[in-house]
Amino acid sequence: MKKKILIVFAHPEATSLTHTMVNTSIETLEEMGHEVILSDLYAMKWKAVFDESDFPKRVNSDRLSFIHESGNAYATQNQSADVVAEQKKLLDADAVILQFPLWWYSTPAILKGWIERVYAFGFAYGYKNGTNEFRFGEGILKGKKALVSVYTGGPQADYSPRGVNGPIEQLLFPLTHGALFYPGMEVLPTHVIHGAAFITPDQVEIEKELWKKRLENLFIEKPIPFREQNGGDYPDRHILKDTVAIGKTGIVAHIAD
Amino acid sequence: MKKKILIVFAHPEATSLTHTMVNTSIETLEEMGHEVILSDLYAMKWKAVFDESDFPKRVNSDRLSFIHESGNAYATQNQSADVVAEQKKLLDADAVILQFPLWWYSTPAILKGWIERVYAFGFAYGYKNGTNEFRFGEGILKGKKALVSVYTGGPQADYSPRGVNGPIEQLLFPLTHGALFYPGMEVLPTHVIHGAAFITPDQVEIEKELWKKRLENLFIEKPIPFREQNGGDYPDRHILKDTVAIGKTGIVAHIAD
Repeated sequence: MKKKILIVFAHPEATSLTHTMVNTSIETLEEMGHEVILSDLYAMKWKAVFDESDFPKRVNSDRLSFIHESGNAYATQNQSADVVAEQKKLLDADAVILQFPLWWYSTPAILKGWIERVYAFGFAYGYKNGTNEFRFGEGILKGKKALVSVYTGGPQADYSPRGVNGPIEQLLFPLTHGALFYPGMEVLPTHVIHGAAFITPDQVEIEKELWKKRLENLFIEKPIPFREQNGGDYPDRHILKDTVAIGKTGIVAHIAD
Repeated sequence: MKKKILIVFAHPEATSLTHTMVNTSIETLEEMGHEVILSDLYAMKWKAVFDESDFPKRVNSDRLSFIHESGNAYATQNQSADVVAEQKKLLDADAVILQFPLWWYSTPAILKGWIERVYAFGFAYGYKNGTNEFRFGEGILKGKKALVSVYTGGPQADYSPRGVNGPIEQLLFPLTHGALFYPGMEVLPTHVIHGAAFITPDQVEIEKELWKKRLENLFIEKPIPFREQNGGDYPDRHILKDTVAIGKTGIVAHIAD
């Protein structure tokens, strides 16, 4: 069945590994009959910094509260056009793919700024009633798939379970759990290409095939089993109950066995 | 003894909790006789997006490689003036304090972009010989103290060891370990103020006192015991040896007991 897939990506160089893999995404998904929507953040000259110019019509012109102004701009349809366009893309999409180089163990600033500006109060947080009642598994993007593909400079060993950098899935938890699962998306395991700085053309071809397989299973693959806030594991919506993830703390406790 | 302390902060609103706490930093540190250097990223209109305009003199005008161009610009003194100024502030400082609201479980884009642009190849990574030989405990910022202070919208429970967001120290590991410890800084435990959106004036006064105490102990407090890459725990510089952090994987394995 034909689906709509939003690809958000962050690299300005047309010959970069990021662009090469985005091209593979487009080809593969279109061959499968899907519709691809692109947000090429560098080409769009996406405004990365969330600031007062995002709120031309202020609730309070004396004091800038991002939560209040964001909520008001969203509710009263006074958001900037670029933000509205990205929110519409998200709402229209059946799946969202993020592709970016891992810079200092997280998203490039331009992509972080996309999240900050597009994820308005009332839209991605404070959903429905202005509280945290609907989040982590429930939210405006519920039912959509999310897939992150990152390209690291360093070798796989550095990101292995006991590698010096820490494992990629834990480093990206603020993104996968905190920004994608938060408003309801089902997040697939992160797709990583290591050693991007030294990759050979032959390896690129192999990586294209591996990525193509991930894309072909986009709507079939099982997501990371993040625990849903309202699924019973967090009776007070804040803290895990004693009878799940017994003896575990931290990031790993929020992933079901 | 008089020290130099760089404060990098990210909030545009003068009455925000971030600004209030930055003012407390300045007052406290100056009362102690230290010299304070400020990087008020919003006021500076810091360019957040790392792009081709960072490299007016290119090694390769056909293909933008951030690593190569960054390394060349740094080595040949062709960096932009704003980047040079921040690198000098870092080199001059005895301690670096970052103060920012936690947005989507990480640094605001403008601060992420500060790291990306200031942390040139040859400066913060690829130090000395263009390899990863000197990092995680060794690097150009070795011996300096780093202290992160974040302000969260949500309650403390959400960031507790089994709280739904994950613990702050794990969420910020890409910053504390990956960006501050990486070029050699000794990183103190993160200072957090929770519920910033709903804080009362009385609570702000209490928080000022708690923050003041942290600042007074800036050069006394023990850092997070991140394991040094060249300290013996990573014999091949990539993976922890079997005899340390036995049975542990992930972020927690990189913190000594």
